[in-house]
Amino acid sequence: MRNINKDNITDVFMEYMGDEVPPRLHEVMESLVKHLHAFAKEVNLTHEEWQVGIEFLERSGEISDAERHEFVLLSDVLGLSSLVDMLHSHPEGTSSSVLGPFHISGAPPLEIGGDLKGRFEGEVLIAEGIVKDTEGNPIEGATVDIWQTAPNGLYSSQDPDQDTYSFHGLQTTGADGRYAFTSVKPVEYTVPSDGPVGDILNATGRHPWRPSHLHFIIKAEGFRDLVTEVFPDDDPYLDEDTVFGVRDDLVMSYKQMPAGSFPDGFALSGTVDEPYLRVDFDLTLVRE
Amino acid sequence: MRNINKDNITDVFMEYMGDEVPPRLHEVMESLVKHLHAFAKEVNLTHEEWQVGIEFLERSGEISDAERHEFVLLSDVLGLSSLVDMLHSHPEGTSSSVLGPFHISGAPPLEIGGDLKGRFEGEVLIAEGIVKDTEGNPIEGATVDIWQTAPNGLYSSQDPDQDTYSFHGLQTTGADGRYAFTSVKPVEYTVPSDGPVGDILNATGRHPWRPSHLHFIIKAEGFRDLVTEVFPDDDPYLDEDTVFGVRDDLVMSYKQMPAGSFPDGFALSGTVDEPYLRVDFDLTLVRE
Repeated sequence: MRNINKDNITDVFMEYMGDEVPPRLHEVMESLVKHLHAFAKEVNLTHEEWQVGIEFLERSGEISDAERHEFVLLSDVLGLSSLVDMLHSHPEGTSSSVLGPFHISGAPPLEIGGDLKGRFEGEVLIAEGIVKDTEGNPIEGATVDIWQTAPNGLYSSQDPDQDTYSFHGLQTTGADGRYAFTSVKPVEYTVPSDGPVGDILNATGRHPWRPSHLHFIIKAEGFRDLVTEVFPDDDPYLDEDTVFGVRDDLVMSYKQMPAGSFPDGFALSGTVDEPYLRVDFDLTLVRE
Repeated sequence: MRNINKDNITDVFMEYMGDEVPPRLHEVMESLVKHLHAFAKEVNLTHEEWQVGIEFLERSGEISDAERHEFVLLSDVLGLSSLVDMLHSHPEGTSSSVLGPFHISGAPPLEIGGDLKGRFEGEVLIAEGIVKDTEGNPIEGATVDIWQTAPNGLYSSQDPDQDTYSFHGLQTTGADGRYAFTSVKPVEYTVPSDGPVGDILNATGRHPWRPSHLHFIIKAEGFRDLVTEVFPDDDPYLDEDTVFGVRDDLVMSYKQMPAGSFPDGFALSGTVDEPYLRVDFDLTLVRE
């Protein structure tokens, strides 16, 4: 096609694709380019704006490395990551929510009732619940990969004062499906805002805060993996998570427990006399 | 908003934007995110496909540097660069076409009738024409920035055997608006296909070829800058330029001229006895 114009270029793109393109790839590319072209036409995108976009992508590439994932962050703050989560959440299971960039593989095993608080200061928190199927039956042998911020708002990979696996643990449920551990409250924090994505937040009048949350990845044989987070109902950023991660069913409550009531069955049992917090949150998996 | 779902997330994104956002930025972001979300929903984008997209962007960032502009190339092969050109081309002027990544600043002045061929082998080409306004009046003092491939298909920045400014020149028109220079035929070439954008071309059954062309940037006081390219009508890739750059009015013809007819007024006059090629192509600028 030599007479390309703004009305036929999207069709010409489709014609350029070969006959042997896998149908799913064809479908995704067709939709992507259709929307890309429609966007440019709808706003009558200028060369200068196009240049800003190219420089944004180049800067995002430059700041990215094994630790810093600016394109993931871009997807997060544009709501794309959460949308993909929601498109594939099953209504009968616990909602999924953004993985985020701070999960690390190889978390050490954490016994039922084990502790993540370690040497860190803060009010003790007990988190526990049942990993169950959609009929409410407990799931034995489910792995619950847990991670969260330290009280300073940093994940271990961001903080030289933490060990590699501080506030990371991998628990395996028994026949009762129960997970249970002690920790301290995670805290709200900002996504990295010193790069190009931070510039977008700034230019569009947005803040970089996420409400505090506990991260989980739950896996069990025969069930769909669940990547999720749970959020306390008193967090100031609950209604304005900058990465759109909050879902109704992922909101939990901290119960304030009185001094002297700390239960048995925890690694910290017998060592906590003060008041503490408790959260009960069951996690429902959907069969594959 | 804590009850974010796939039906309201686009609206929530709009609500997150502040009241002080400049209207044009608001408009562009709204359209961009509306189409991004619509794309993800339309194809029911999976986590695995999302991951492929993120890795594609990260790889594009890694391969990019001052010489290699993978995101520009991505825009080019998706037709976005050409669409932006066409959105802002004026119907009464010469069409604009993709700048491409091989323009370099500071090309040396080239007298009217000057030569770009230099020490390179190949059939001599005379290119000339009038830079004029939309009423056909010649424009004096217009600068015509010219660049093209060497006969080996490489631009000077890609080729250690060329000097920095081989096949680059900057001509300024006189009262007659005429530009004129000698060179050799540019040749068709492939866009860089050894990176992530090449993987897209490969996966979608496309080739990386561009038809041969001469590049021009024409500037004149009181007129809109024109970035364009002209293509010979006998090029095998004329109907399938992988970056969608060809427009009807940018197609020209090489005239085969007989031996002994080489005209006066060129740097090479008196030195060319063989047959040569000639192309006449006027360039029309639109007032600002």
